[in-house]
Amino acid sequence: MLTRIDHIGIACHDLDATVEFYRTTYGFEVFHTEVNEEQGVREAMLKINETSDGGASYLQLLEPVREDSTVAKWLAKNGEGVHHIAFGTADVDGDAAAIRDKGVRVLYEEPRRGSMGSRITFLHPKDCHGVLTELVTSAPVESDEH
Amino acid sequence: MLTRIDHIGIACHDLDATVEFYRTTYGFEVFHTEVNEEQGVREAMLKINETSDGGASYLQLLEPVREDSTVAKWLAKNGEGVHHIAFGTADVDGDAAAIRDKGVRVLYEEPRRGSMGSRITFLHPKDCHGVLTELVTSAPVESDEH
Repeated sequence: MLTRIDHIGIACHDLDATVEFYRTTYGFEVFHTEVNEEQGVREAMLKINETSDGGASYLQLLEPVREDSTVAKWLAKNGEGVHHIAFGTADVDGDAAAIRDKGVRVLYEEPRRGSMGSRITFLHPKDCHGVLTELVTSAPVESDEH
Repeated sequence: MLTRIDHIGIACHDLDATVEFYRTTYGFEVFHTEVNEEQGVREAMLKINETSDGGASYLQLLEPVREDSTVAKWLAKNGEGVHHIAFGTADVDGDAAAIRDKGVRVLYEEPRRGSMGSRITFLHPKDCHGVLTELVTSAPVESDEH
């Protein structure tokens, strides 16, 4: 069962400049940064609020680290903006299987590694009214900035 | 101070079909529906979780009700997908003024009426790394479906 908006993924050309925009404009601070080599991105997680299921909602700022990453191709086509949305669940495997059974294309055969040790998969945007949709099961997390 | 992800605004061609997709695929139920004549949209709010500031996070599904609405023009250019993101605050007037002072274009001189009696304004996406960004102060709300 999907129990929260886990994050909004935002693609940008310059992660440091975008982090600085969110910090100076809204006061949002970086909770965690990492490079996901498989996804081809450098990312910053900004924690916005905690959620009633015991999790939290983040902005995930994404900068491509190689030209052939999906985010680099997306940026070249669309420019900066919202790249995907993600719902949190305690059971990404079960939910992905149930959603696949309803005829929605799930992009990974098995969930892969996401931010902060989470396990993630994506649903095809053409099956989701144009929205690239991620499902996330979080690992226990602690900010690397605190 | 912005204290939550209030909602993700998603533009669609057919509100009823999109509501049905979110219900059958994820189990998300409609919390509230309304027509906003000023914005030129018919909308459905799907409540996803409650938030640590005493508010909630929603998906806001938006269907244009006239050809000259900004959402109709956006759909004609972009197709269905994420139209904007919204942050919740207790003081949309004060936050909008502070953000305007930082050089970000605020689209309304004064906040206008948003979903469920809220007061809202928007920030220019070109000043926000491509993200059309809304600020929301909620009114006390009760679902019209409960």
